[in-house]
Amino acid sequence: MSEFQYFSFMTSPVFSVWEKGALWSVLGVAVLGLLYAGFLMGQVLREPRGTPKMIQIAEAIQGGANAYLSRQFKAILFLILILTGVLYFTAQEHHIALGRACAFLMGAVFSATVGFVGMNLAVRGNIRVAAASRTSFGQALKIAYRTGTITGMLTDGLGLLGGTMIFMIYGERAYEVLLGFGFGGTLLALFMRVGGGIYTKAADVGADLVGKIEKGIPEDDPRNAATIADNVGDNVGDCAGMAADIFESYEVTIVSAMILGWASFGHKGVIFPLLVRAIGVLASIIGTYAVRTSDKVRDAMRAINVGFSLSAVASVIGFTTLGFWYLRFPGSGPLPFRFSLGVPGLDMRPVWTTGVGILLALTVNRLTEHFTETSKPPVQSVAKATTTGHATTIITGLAVGYESTVWAVLAIAMAIFASALIYSGTNPTFVAYGVAMCGIGMLTLTGNNISMDVFGPVADNANGIGEMAHLEPAARQTLADLDAVGNTTKAITKGIAIASAVVAAVSLFNAYITDIGTILKRTYEQVAATLTLAEPSVFIGILIGGAVPFLFSSLLIHAVGRAAGLIVQEVRHQFKDRAVWEGKKLPDYARVVSICTAAAQKELIGPALLAIVTPVVVGYAFGTPGLAGFLGGAILSGQLLAVFMANAGGAWDNAKKSIEDGQYGGKGSEAHKASVTGDTVGDPLKDTAGPALNPMIKVMNMVAMLAVPLILAHRGNPPLRWGVVLGGLGVVALALRFSKREIQSRVTAEEPVPQAALK
Amino acid sequence: MSEFQYFSFMTSPVFSVWEKGALWSVLGVAVLGLLYAGFLMGQVLREPRGTPKMIQIAEAIQGGANAYLSRQFKAILFLILILTGVLYFTAQEHHIALGRACAFLMGAVFSATVGFVGMNLAVRGNIRVAAASRTSFGQALKIAYRTGTITGMLTDGLGLLGGTMIFMIYGERAYEVLLGFGFGGTLLALFMRVGGGIYTKAADVGADLVGKIEKGIPEDDPRNAATIADNVGDNVGDCAGMAADIFESYEVTIVSAMILGWASFGHKGVIFPLLVRAIGVLASIIGTYAVRTSDKVRDAMRAINVGFSLSAVASVIGFTTLGFWYLRFPGSGPLPFRFSLGVPGLDMRPVWTTGVGILLALTVNRLTEHFTETSKPPVQSVAKATTTGHATTIITGLAVGYESTVWAVLAIAMAIFASALIYSGTNPTFVAYGVAMCGIGMLTLTGNNISMDVFGPVADNANGIGEMAHLEPAARQTLADLDAVGNTTKAITKGIAIASAVVAAVSLFNAYITDIGTILKRTYEQVAATLTLAEPSVFIGILIGGAVPFLFSSLLIHAVGRAAGLIVQEVRHQFKDRAVWEGKKLPDYARVVSICTAAAQKELIGPALLAIVTPVVVGYAFGTPGLAGFLGGAILSGQLLAVFMANAGGAWDNAKKSIEDGQYGGKGSEAHKASVTGDTVGDPLKDTAGPALNPMIKVMNMVAMLAVPLILAHRGNPPLRWGVVLGGLGVVALALRFSKREIQSRVTAEEPVPQAALK
Repeated sequence: MSEFQYFSFMTSPVFSVWEKGALWSVLGVAVLGLLYAGFLMGQVLREPRGTPKMIQIAEAIQGGANAYLSRQFKAILFLILILTGVLYFTAQEHHIALGRACAFLMGAVFSATVGFVGMNLAVRGNIRVAAASRTSFGQALKIAYRTGTITGMLTDGLGLLGGTMIFMIYGERAYEVLLGFGFGGTLLALFMRVGGGIYTKAADVGADLVGKIEKGIPEDDPRNAATIADNVGDNVGDCAGMAADIFESYEVTIVSAMILGWASFGHKGVIFPLLVRAIGVLASIIGTYAVRTSDKVRDAMRAINVGFSLSAVASVIGFTTLGFWYLRFPGSGPLPFRFSLGVPGLDMRPVWTTGVGILLALTVNRLTEHFTETSKPPVQSVAKATTTGHATTIITGLAVGYESTVWAVLAIAMAIFASALIYSGTNPTFVAYGVAMCGIGMLTLTGNNISMDVFGPVADNANGIGEMAHLEPAARQTLADLDAVGNTTKAITKGIAIASAVVAAVSLFNAYITDIGTILKRTYEQVAATLTLAEPSVFIGILIGGAVPFLFSSLLIHAVGRAAGLIVQEVRHQFKDRAVWEGKKLPDYARVVSICTAAAQKELIGPALLAIVTPVVVGYAFGTPGLAGFLGGAILSGQLLAVFMANAGGAWDNAKKSIEDGQYGGKGSEAHKASVTGDTVGDPLKDTAGPALNPMIKVMNMVAMLAVPLILAHRGNPPLRWGVVLGGLGVVALALRFSKREIQSRVTAEEPVPQAALK
Repeated sequence: MSEFQYFSFMTSPVFSVWEKGALWSVLGVAVLGLLYAGFLMGQVLREPRGTPKMIQIAEAIQGGANAYLSRQFKAILFLILILTGVLYFTAQEHHIALGRACAFLMGAVFSATVGFVGMNLAVRGNIRVAAASRTSFGQALKIAYRTGTITGMLTDGLGLLGGTMIFMIYGERAYEVLLGFGFGGTLLALFMRVGGGIYTKAADVGADLVGKIEKGIPEDDPRNAATIADNVGDNVGDCAGMAADIFESYEVTIVSAMILGWASFGHKGVIFPLLVRAIGVLASIIGTYAVRTSDKVRDAMRAINVGFSLSAVASVIGFTTLGFWYLRFPGSGPLPFRFSLGVPGLDMRPVWTTGVGILLALTVNRLTEHFTETSKPPVQSVAKATTTGHATTIITGLAVGYESTVWAVLAIAMAIFASALIYSGTNPTFVAYGVAMCGIGMLTLTGNNISMDVFGPVADNANGIGEMAHLEPAARQTLADLDAVGNTTKAITKGIAIASAVVAAVSLFNAYITDIGTILKRTYEQVAATLTLAEPSVFIGILIGGAVPFLFSSLLIHAVGRAAGLIVQEVRHQFKDRAVWEGKKLPDYARVVSICTAAAQKELIGPALLAIVTPVVVGYAFGTPGLAGFLGGAILSGQLLAVFMANAGGAWDNAKKSIEDGQYGGKGSEAHKASVTGDTVGDPLKDTAGPALNPMIKVMNMVAMLAVPLILAHRGNPPLRWGVVLGGLGVVALALRFSKREIQSRVTAEEPVPQAALK
């Protein structure tokens, strides 16, 4: 039956030959992106790997990272297969159901591939960066950046490939199948973010506590059994987690733009966003390839920014030109000059909303930069506060974080407003299409964003390898400089991930309403009217939805504490072996890696269940209006918390760096101690709880979309309905109890180990 | 014309003679409550005042507190008068407009009176408690508790008096006038909470930083110029601020119950909540008078709890009996047994929803207790975390706070759900009446709650006086025990304040819709349909509304830092006088008090403007749907933040106390230092930003209600509309700039004073 749909596209009179060609070209660009990734891969892998010592260390990191991911994939394979089966039953027609289930699998596999391949390259790139640092800063930067670009182009390529293929096969029914594709990617992203986030911070904190604090040895000292796990953590958290997460936003925005484009502009509405994406891929190829720098450190950020600007300009010129030629609707009503540019039939509105998205991406990047960059007032106020103690450091960081989240939310609100304003006076589907195109614009330069993000852990790892392999001082300085650049680029791109989650969720909301309308045979307006704030269940949903991100964050913070406690015990145990302490024997790195892996797998269960189960419980208990409120509340408080956590954590981190660079007494001063407290408080916020909130929001949205037909079908069956609610509550209670038990054991335990973890 | 309305009630055939009598009885009970307050006042004032030294100290506190409040009242008098004028123009008919303006003044004056008289008594009661502590714990507790009860009964009495009088004069038009009454109370509460909160923490932190930390002298050492200001702060923040805040919730809930009662059940719907309140006043009199204890410390909490339970049982029996006899509607349709108890025409639904409110109050109290009491796992987990350093202490406190806010929100959501469920299948007005009655039930025992709350600062002050006047050790121990009891009772009641704000706001929402409907001549359903989540402006409103509490908190945290900085400078300056340092000359307490007062007045401008102006800006920019979303978002994130701040702060505070009582090494240990960090971080959260969020939410709601007619009237006038938006944004920008300028000066200032403030 899928064949039938496939031919319906090929033979469809709706699409001109030109358009069919364009779609095939989009597929071609997707493949081109993948080929470019392959080309860069070859380039990076051809670089020299350095000394045997370096190779030994890098292989340990590589082994650990692969061990983690394969264990993670094995652990969730079962769940993925079950859900594939469940998904089959969320659609009524056989061929849609089958397509959705397959697309779900494909989404999950693509997301996993982006994470796996990207991380795999990162752990191969790091050693090559370290080796290059011995001769040239410029070369080291280029390798690190290109390693990141591989992941970026994989994200672009696979995202575009999946969406386009499904559209070509399913045509106007593609939406129902794309939902499966989006959910697969989202779910994987949630697991990667949560598991990776717990792993990376447990290893980091555990290594620091025993190494830096208890034993007074440097950060990446090879005697410390947790150093490899720490370096692995940077890859699984920042690289694989982030890539899977952004891949998913990339998918969801294209999914919603295609659905809404079809409903509002017909075929041109679908093809335009795909072409914009294709242009973005080409622009990213040009921009990322252009990143090269002299051996001067201060040129580094400039080179990366020039690459970004180049891509931005190329894509704006590209999609504006495209829109000018393609978006013509002969016979349509006259539009004001600002939309038609005086050309009859021309409708530039999709172009303008895409532009709003690009502006939003730039604004969010600048905001993040303002609140987390060392030279700016917010970080300086935190640095200053360290001179008056631990408490002022924390308080100032909290205030900075709270303020930063306000501006991010306002930027998003204004972008949504602008997109809606462009379509004001039309119908809700047009408006939603405007918001979706804003999301498309925002993620146009995904290739560049991921390059910048992955650059962070690669540079960080290269620095670690340099330290552990005792490279010469000049190379060490080069690597330290590179690490600092990586910290900045990594921090800047964090804002995009959460903002895109919000925009994607908003544009999906329209589909939520349309879905309910289709099932209940009501008009859009009738359904929309039931989702009013005047309805108590909507308001109750908002309250409950708003609470979930707080509970989720609380669980994750506790989880990091517990997992780190296990690492501390193991590292302490290994140090008892004199040969290890004296450096005559290598510690058992693999054991720590495996403990970290197991702990992260175990701890991700509770938070993941919370994200998957609560929308179902709320939907069954309070109906679709309650579920709509729930999503609204979760988006709001999730966004506020995520940005607060990312920026407060970033500000504390950079305040510490600023002091370590000599400000306010430098290393060893009282101010430095206070800054370490700030950084340690910020770590689980900015690297575990905060980033995990993005996929959490998106998973809850996707689950809600998929559960709607079931919720409506079971309305008239109270025993089933309340059975689901009670069963779901039972699952949530178990997840909480799991966490509670540990809190209490911490209180009564003889040795204060788990909490000790967070130094 | 108000005479006309007055007689319309007296001669109205709608009210039976019995009911007219009942209303007069309610007025009588209100007066009785005031008389009881007067009686207790006489009792307290007749107690002995102790030694001349004590009198001297107490008079200094008293003088400072009065100076603060009179300056505060003077500062806002101008604003109040302007707003009285503005309010006149928010109503269209002359007699309603005049009534609303007068009611606004009355609300403000009543709220100020509750704050002023309550605080005035607290600063007279404290010395008498200190004097009594020299002979008997039981007597000291009784005096402290009764001092609190005076404020409690003033709140009850004036709240009931105002609402009843306005209803008797304006009859069915009372709602429009009551809005003014509610706004007056709310606005005063905002100023008292924000100003008092800044004052109390600036003085506290300033006194501690120079005294305890820099000079190593005890907390209430008379040589410290800031000690009096610190004691004044407890009164203006915890006593006057809290009383004004609860007074306002008490008012708003009765206002909404009366409005909705009239619309749903007619006269019985209005009179029933008034009678429930009257029963609550009587029950509070009985319960509070019964609080007396032996000289055993551990009996203290039991005695207070017995008083509370006694009131609860008395009021439940009272309003159930009343409902059973009064809520009969002959000829109405048959109700299920659970509502009619099998009696034809009986409708017990208002009784059940009132009961839900009482349950919610008890639940919220228990939840607060669980998360902040020393013996419970959450505080113990924070105490345990202090053994592993500053960072774990903060992280654990954050996790505890995040979790606690989830349960509080769920409790509120469940109470709203239960109230709505009782009225399911009826119309929205009935449902809203159910929620309003839940609010009535929740605040029935306001007398007891305020007694418990004000008990805190009175005991704290008595303890301070004992220390400064060098009382004998036995008395000092008694006062320390009393202070500990006060800390517990004060913390427990904090939850009620915020929960009641949320319930009151929800029940007002119905009036918001009805208002719009009346002006636009549309049905309730038509207006409700425009407030759908599907409408972008509603969603944008939710995002902006959710951001405001974060900005507000950030401003307040910075404000405390700056104000404390000024105190630090002054105290340091005074210590340079050798005579002061050697104790031969009293420091200039009044100067510190006056600096604190001035700083609090200056700093409250920005946050207060934010609360007043943003709803107007959002309403003019995004229309009434956007404003509705704005209120929803603000309620959600305000509630989440307020409970998080109160409970995280409470947990840190009590973890510190637990360590000072000898746990984990006691005073002077590393654990103690970490616990002090936690407490200091928690202070501005739990005593300034958190409590100020309640009146902020309520002010925004009230402003929204009052602005609706203007927003709708100016829809068709873009220049005026956007002029208001730009003007409002300008005001907000100025308020922010005010704060920004200071942050930056902090960064560049030579001496790190302002931040130093927060120790």
